[in-house]
Parts: sequence; structure tokens; C-alpha cells
Amino acid sequence: MDWEKNVRRTEPYVAGEQPGQGGVVKLNTNECPYPPSPKVGEVLKGLDFEGLRLYPDMDAKELVNTLADYYHVKPGQIFVGVGSDDVLAMSFLTFFNGGKPILFPDITYSFYDVWAEVFRIPYRTCPLDGDFRIQKEDYQKPNGGIVIPNPNAPTGVMEDVGVLEEIVAANPGSVVVIDEAYVDFGGESMLPLIGRYPNLMVVQTFSKSRAMAGMRIGFAIANEKLIGYLKDVKFSFNSYTMGLPAILAGKAALLDQAYFKETVGKIIDTREWAKEQLKGLGFTLTDSKSNFVFASHRSIPAREIFQALKENNIYVRYWDKPRINNHLRITIGTREQMETLVAFLENYIKER
Amino acid sequence: MDWEKNVRRTEPYVAGEQPGQGGVVKLNTNECPYPPSPKVGEVLKGLDFEGLRLYPDMDAKELVNTLADYYHVKPGQIFVGVGSDDVLAMSFLTFFNGGKPILFPDITYSFYDVWAEVFRIPYRTCPLDGDFRIQKEDYQKPNGGIVIPNPNAPTGVMEDVGVLEEIVAANPGSVVVIDEAYVDFGGESMLPLIGRYPNLMVVQTFSKSRAMAGMRIGFAIANEKLIGYLKDVKFSFNSYTMGLPAILAGKAALLDQAYFKETVGKIIDTREWAKEQLKGLGFTLTDSKSNFVFASHRSIPAREIFQALKENNIYVRYWDKPRINNHLRITIGTREQMETLVAFLENYIKER
Repeated sequence: MDWEKNVRRTEPYVAGEQPGQGGVVKLNTNECPYPPSPKVGEVLKGLDFEGLRLYPDMDAKELVNTLADYYHVKPGQIFVGVGSDDVLAMSFLTFFNGGKPILFPDITYSFYDVWAEVFRIPYRTCPLDGDFRIQKEDYQKPNGGIVIPNPNAPTGVMEDVGVLEEIVAANPGSVVVIDEAYVDFGGESMLPLIGRYPNLMVVQTFSKSRAMAGMRIGFAIANEKLIGYLKDVKFSFNSYTMGLPAILAGKAALLDQAYFKETVGKIIDTREWAKEQLKGLGFTLTDSKSNFVFASHRSIPAREIFQALKENNIYVRYWDKPRINNHLRITIGTREQMETLVAFLENYIKER
Repeated sequence: MDWEKNVRRTEPYVAGEQPGQGGVVKLNTNECPYPPSPKVGEVLKGLDFEGLRLYPDMDAKELVNTLADYYHVKPGQIFVGVGSDDVLAMSFLTFFNGGKPILFPDITYSFYDVWAEVFRIPYRTCPLDGDFRIQKEDYQKPNGGIVIPNPNAPTGVMEDVGVLEEIVAANPGSVVVIDEAYVDFGGESMLPLIGRYPNLMVVQTFSKSRAMAGMRIGFAIANEKLIGYLKDVKFSFNSYTMGLPAILAGKAALLDQAYFKETVGKIIDTREWAKEQLKGLGFTLTDSKSNFVFASHRSIPAREIFQALKENNIYVRYWDKPRINNHLRITIGTREQMETLVAFLENYIKER
């Protein structure tokens, strides 16, 4: 139709399936297999719902101040959003506004090129080496910005913080965004370097290690000037993104450090156990430091395993994309869920 | 600094003040003076917080299907977002992507030009006449899109739906967005015309008439093709914008029609009462069909009244902008709050 000529056309991001029915072993979207802290439940139960008539605090101060205490930075160094996707999308819009291409790995979170397309940001992907490692020289060329996830997704590979620091230091003319969605599962954060590099921004999320994907909370930490620019763009978009339940529940989750440590510890233990089991079944795995493993079988194509698992109500993630089309990304569930997976695979491989 | 050359600079929207302390008669941000439906409270109390570990349904089906039933449209005709600001921002990005300027009134919601600036959309404002009415010929010129709030803000003036229909019909080459944030307070919706005009989109919100500003829910209704484009852009931005509490609480609010009617009825009654009182005190008012009035005093400058009110803990909204810098926008509070306002003004005008 006539009005369609003015429409922005775009290829949207495709998220992992969310099966409607129960009985599924859901290891496909990197959710936490454990519930959020019970303190989150208490806060929601006690929420004064009458207060919902008012706009929420647009600075989400209760949450921001708690994050500031937790990470030992100033409140002005923190930006919060509707999941880290919101934070990253706003960062792309804010910081990747030059003419030169931005850089990110060729195998990485598949939202980066989607954001670049929708905001018309030129980009170039830098090939990981055969072990899915970053080649730092790739990021020492002229660019309009850099985004690197660490640990990377879907590989789970943790890059050495020293290598990333070299990249940040080599690019004073670009904002370097380190996407640490999975860092709590045994990775090393770049946060201690924020004070040293005004062009470094770290993004994290409550969706994985804090088990709050359903609440939508992500955040960025950087120097105040950089965060100020990000806020300006955010406040040109939507003043009130963080609803009252998210602000209060996010704060409660942060304050329950004991529960957080326990949950993350269990996931790490299960991951290491699952790695050994899968190796025993003929899989090759990266040394994932995230809440998933990235696995390829020595003889059975990943696509076939993916289908067999799905038919048996075990959901994992598979991409039919160059270089990773023989790998599966398997979220770490409970020990019981992983035992179900391993038992099925053992039998499947034997019977095949 | 060096990296700043790639940064998008923008003048953010400035929202009304959110006073931290209590004891304020808050008539400055068009919030509902009554709480949301008690059903909202029940749903939040009963929320299975453990379910927050999972990503929410990215299509927000429970909320969308309830909206579809309520407004007698198909679920595919509905788009939901983080407040109507999110919905409008996404619409600007999606539909106003041509080279020609988009059109909107010169006196209107002050986010429109902010979105146009941040997305680099050329725009032209069309002057309202002396009675703050739209001049329809202004919208029958070449354009890249049209956005009109009805009732308008901050004037509260309701435009005749027939006039708006002429504008929609005259612009088959443009998407026409009618922003009906305030329509529930006695306005007439364009929704019955959605089926007739494929280029018409209506946007509404839960923040005003449903008293849920703190929860962040807005929505758009249009034909399925148009909504499909909007979803593509949205899914290029953030897959999961609506958290679980918003989906469930929004549904609960919609289903409590009796409470909604009662609340809206009380606000309309109080508005009409307040109009008479203010007229008696020497104010000229538009015939507002929203949850606020737009008032100018015959002898005292608006700015002085604004200051005097603020010093006495009564917050209203004032803009130092051409054509409206002698007006106040006063949100309709409870009858008691409006009596406090009127009593103060009566005394203030007498003593002055």
C-alpha cells in the first residue's frame, strides 16, 4: 500500500522458542533453573499496589543506588534499562553514531547486527580464530565503536581481561562496550577498569545470574560523562522505562548476596559436571564460563541431535549459521535436568 | 574527549517534577488520583514470583488477547509497549522513515519533536488556531506522516472525529497516528474507523484512566499489516519489553470494567466541577475532555500563580513556551484536592 513507502523494513531478532506446554526440559534460552531470591517474592507480595497510579521514579534511584553500593561506583555511573537488550540498544543508538563501521566478533550475540541494521550503523565483523578466540589486532583498526561480549555467546568462551584492556586502550576514539551478561558464572569483569578508561562501558543483566528474566532489568556502568549521554538519549525515547515492581524487586535481589552466591555456585558445579559427562559421550566443548555449554559431537551432526532432543521435549539452541552449524548451545539447568539430558543422549548415541 | 565525536547529542524530554516529600497536592503529571483496580493488587499478591526466572511471553499474549476482546479487534491488530511513550517512539521509528517532513500541531505533547530529533525525522508543526483547534488544511499537504493527539495535550481540546477522518482519508500515503492517551475521559475514539483506513493507528495507555502509570503499559491498534511492521522494528530493538507483572496486572485492570467506569466517572464529575469553580475565579478554560484542565487567568500571569501554588505545595504544570506561557495545566485530582486548590486560589486572588 501507499503508506508502506515510508516504513522502515527490518529483519527482527529471533529469540529461542518459549514452549507453551509444561513437561519440557527447557535448556534453550539461558534462563536460570532456580527461582529468584525469596526476598523478591516478599517485596512483590508487600508492594503497595495503590502506588502504581503514580509514575515511577524516572531515575530508578532505589535500584541505581543499590547497584552503586554493590559495585562501589557512583550512582551517576549507572544506567538501568528494560533488560540488557534495552541498555545495549540505547548504547548503539548513543555511541555508535559516527560514519566508520563498528566492530564485533563474527560469532556472537545475534542481536548486534540487528541493532546495527535498524539504526543504520555500518558494521564489520571480526572472525574469531579456530578456538573461538578474539584476535586483538582486528580491533586496532579505525572504527566507530566496538562491542564484545565476555564471556562470548553462544560459545561461552572467556577472553582474557588483559587482552580486552589492550583493545580499550588502543581505541580512545571509540566507546568500547563489554557485554558481561554471563560474567557472574566464573568470568572476570572489566568493572575495576572503568575508572581508568573513559571510553569503556560494561553491561550486565538480572536475567541470568539473578533469575529475573521475567522482570526485565539490565544495567550499564561507565564514567559519568558517558552515562550522561546515554541518559540523554534514553530520556529522548521514554522517560519511564523501569516500572515500580522492577525497581523494588531488583533492589531486593541485589541485597540477597547469600542467595545469589548459592545459586551461581550450583550452576557452576552443574556446568562442570555436565562438561565431563558430555565429553564422555564424544562431545567437544569450549571451556564455557557462562550458564551454558557449547558442544559439538565428533560424529553426529548437531542438527540431528537438536531434532532428536526436541522430539523428546528437551529444548536446546541450534543455529544454522556458518561456522557454528555443527554446535549446540545447551543452557545449564538443574542437576536433575542435566541428568535427564545426559541419559537421553547416552541412549540416543548408543541406539543410533 | 576523543570518543565523544561519535556520540549522538540530544535535548531530552523534560517530564513534570516528581516531588520526593509527602504532603504535596500533586496535580502536575496527569496521574489518576485513585488507585488501580483492586484486582491489580490481587494479581500482584498472587503472582508466582518463581516464574520470574523465565523470559516473559514476548508476544504478551495474555494482555494482547484481553485487549483484543475488549476492543473487538484481532490480537494481530494490537501492539503493546512500555507505556504509550514506548509505543509512540517505536511508531516514529517505524512509520516516519521517508524523506518528507512529518506533521503535528505546534501546541502538543512535547515528546513529538524530541523523537523526531533523536531519530533524525524532518518535521513541521502546524499552528492551532486561536481556540487551540486543528486547521485540517494544514494536514492535506505532502508529508511523511502525521501524529495528532486527541484530546490534545496540554490543551485538553477534543477534535471532531469527522475532521480527523478527513485527514486520514486525505493521506493514504502516510501513516496517521492518533494519540488517544486521554480519550477515556469523555473523548470519542477513532477505533471504530481502524477497519476502514489501513493507514490509521490509534495509541492508548494504562497510565491515566487505568491508574497504572507505575506499571508502564501502552498499546496501539491498527490493521494487522501495519502492526506487523511495528513488531518487526520492536523485535529489532528488544524482544522482551513487557515483564510478567505488567502482563498480568494489565489484564486484570482491563477485566474490571465496573471499577474503570466508576473511576473515570468521578474524574469527569470533578473536572466539570473544577471548571465552574475556576471560571468563577476569573479563569478562562478550554472545554477539556481529558483528566486535566488548561486555564489562563484574566489578570494574573500564569507563571506567578504557578509559583504561588508551588510555594504552597500545590504542584501544577507550566511551560515557558510561546502561545501557552500564560496557561496552567492542572491535573484533575480527587474532589478534596481540587477543593484545596480552589480554596487556595480564592484566597490568593483576593489577597493579591
